[in-house]
Amino acid sequence: MKPKKEQLLMTLRMFLCSLMLMSVTQAEDLLPSWAETAPKQAILDFVARVSEPNGKDFVPEQDRLAVFDNDGTLWPECPMPFQIAYVIDEVKRLATEQPELVKDPMIKAALKGDFKALFAGEKHDGFMKIMALTHSGMSSDEFSRRVKSWFATAKYPPLGTSYGEAKYQPMQEVFDLLRSEGFKIAIVSGGGADFMRQFSQDVYDIEPEWVLGSSADVVFELQNNKPTFMKQATGLYINDKVGKSVRIYQQLGRRPIACFGNSDGDQSMLEYTTIDNPYKSLGVIIHHTDGQRECQYDVKPPFSGKLITALEEAPKWGWVVVDMKNDWEKVFSKK
Amino acid sequence: MKPKKEQLLMTLRMFLCSLMLMSVTQAEDLLPSWAETAPKQAILDFVARVSEPNGKDFVPEQDRLAVFDNDGTLWPECPMPFQIAYVIDEVKRLATEQPELVKDPMIKAALKGDFKALFAGEKHDGFMKIMALTHSGMSSDEFSRRVKSWFATAKYPPLGTSYGEAKYQPMQEVFDLLRSEGFKIAIVSGGGADFMRQFSQDVYDIEPEWVLGSSADVVFELQNNKPTFMKQATGLYINDKVGKSVRIYQQLGRRPIACFGNSDGDQSMLEYTTIDNPYKSLGVIIHHTDGQRECQYDVKPPFSGKLITALEEAPKWGWVVVDMKNDWEKVFSKK
Repeated sequence: MKPKKEQLLMTLRMFLCSLMLMSVTQAEDLLPSWAETAPKQAILDFVARVSEPNGKDFVPEQDRLAVFDNDGTLWPECPMPFQIAYVIDEVKRLATEQPELVKDPMIKAALKGDFKALFAGEKHDGFMKIMALTHSGMSSDEFSRRVKSWFATAKYPPLGTSYGEAKYQPMQEVFDLLRSEGFKIAIVSGGGADFMRQFSQDVYDIEPEWVLGSSADVVFELQNNKPTFMKQATGLYINDKVGKSVRIYQQLGRRPIACFGNSDGDQSMLEYTTIDNPYKSLGVIIHHTDGQRECQYDVKPPFSGKLITALEEAPKWGWVVVDMKNDWEKVFSKK
Repeated sequence: MKPKKEQLLMTLRMFLCSLMLMSVTQAEDLLPSWAETAPKQAILDFVARVSEPNGKDFVPEQDRLAVFDNDGTLWPECPMPFQIAYVIDEVKRLATEQPELVKDPMIKAALKGDFKALFAGEKHDGFMKIMALTHSGMSSDEFSRRVKSWFATAKYPPLGTSYGEAKYQPMQEVFDLLRSEGFKIAIVSGGGADFMRQFSQDVYDIEPEWVLGSSADVVFELQNNKPTFMKQATGLYINDKVGKSVRIYQQLGRRPIACFGNSDGDQSMLEYTTIDNPYKSLGVIIHHTDGQRECQYDVKPPFSGKLITALEEAPKWGWVVVDMKNDWEKVFSKK
């Protein structure tokens, strides 16, 4: 009978269709490196809610701003932040070019990796000296060339990969998830904006205007009819703690609805993002609990990234704490 | 014969097709308020060249950044910049609320519109006083409420329209043209970023992160568990002259390929955009030549917008000078 045949065909079609839909659903796990634990569900749930046009938590696409700390949140900060590794490598390079530099005890300390000497004193004179040496007194173009050249060849010792390849795979998946729902993504880091912008596009697919970081004065001038920005050691803006919230306000003029950080330095922007926000919001703390695959620290970090008060405040404000050891099935994409 | 009939049909089709293409071409005049003079052709030619994937002047979409001055470029700055009109109106409003304010001679001067008194002295103490009164000592939310309330009701005296409706129609068409080719558009103004962000979305369809302007310190704090930015009178950054180039570099981290301005205050960003740029670039100066429809000034502006050196340098660097009287068929959309 014809109707029966049609019914059969329809059933077959629906079966095939459901198979297809299932495979689509499976393919749509946008956080495959995350364990099936609470943080993954919290992130997926948040993104689904703010993106559902008919839901009570819907946020218009243009207001979907997510901010991310960089060191310790998007890639490691142990044994030291990558920008510090650059500074040390750059001092070594400069010392071979200009041997007279080595007479300076602080240059000597840098060459030996003696951070105790570099950070001695209230103003950390030694550290400020090598920062000035490697970050000022040159044009922005020259700085760009130096950083790009270093970044292209230097290796991250614990992994033996390039520094760019040391980024955390789970966080890249969060980027993809957010982008699939039209989020704007900004990096808000204590690292230098000028430094990060040399690789943010290649490593994170983030354009320079979405990279907020520490900065210092630049002087604009025409040098032989060439527009030039000369980098200065003055006017230092440390993009950390409340400085992060202030910079988000001043530079982006818009309140984030999601914030990912890993240290007390991110607490202010976690507060700005999540407390009394008329929109549904999400705060996430990456807790470095995995000494085997990465580094284990909070109260006493190897270099930077102290996490005490933000962790204490997390339950009060509903911040999601990611236990790297248990909540990330994979840490690095290249390992 | 069949082949002949097919040939005929093909000819008919091609004819209809060319008619359709013609109408599309005509409908695609994206600068209808511009006279058929050199500036319109220069702008159209530039946009076409940088957007043509096979052309020698092609610029990848993500690098297509255009920067615009605001006052005198996107809307009038005569008889005074709109932000100054806000300051005067706001002083009047505050003086009725707090009559003791009127004892101050500088408040008195503001109420009388005595700009000579306000700008007396090297540091323009009077003007700085009323700026501080109207732009600091309050939260960013309170400032936002005040500006939005003023902007919704105040009228621009020469036109009798709202201030937003006083924008230049030809420049809106430039926005549309650039957007149709994926340009990023930033406002880089001497006006306050906080001030402009209250209306940039509604008036210009420009999101807050693309509004660069003057700024002052803000202090972030939790007030009764409410994240609050308190606006300060300290740390003033005047986004003018070289300050504009510096802010573009610091905030956007990317060199513009097009720049529109109208005064010597824009000369630095015109230079940064057009001189020795590896990409094809465009510099445009809006010259206020139309005393009948708008205001006529350059060397002696009614308030701000002095144009002397940038006009002198224009031929040397190939900057396009727009003669408002002759090159704009329409000035305001609402008139």
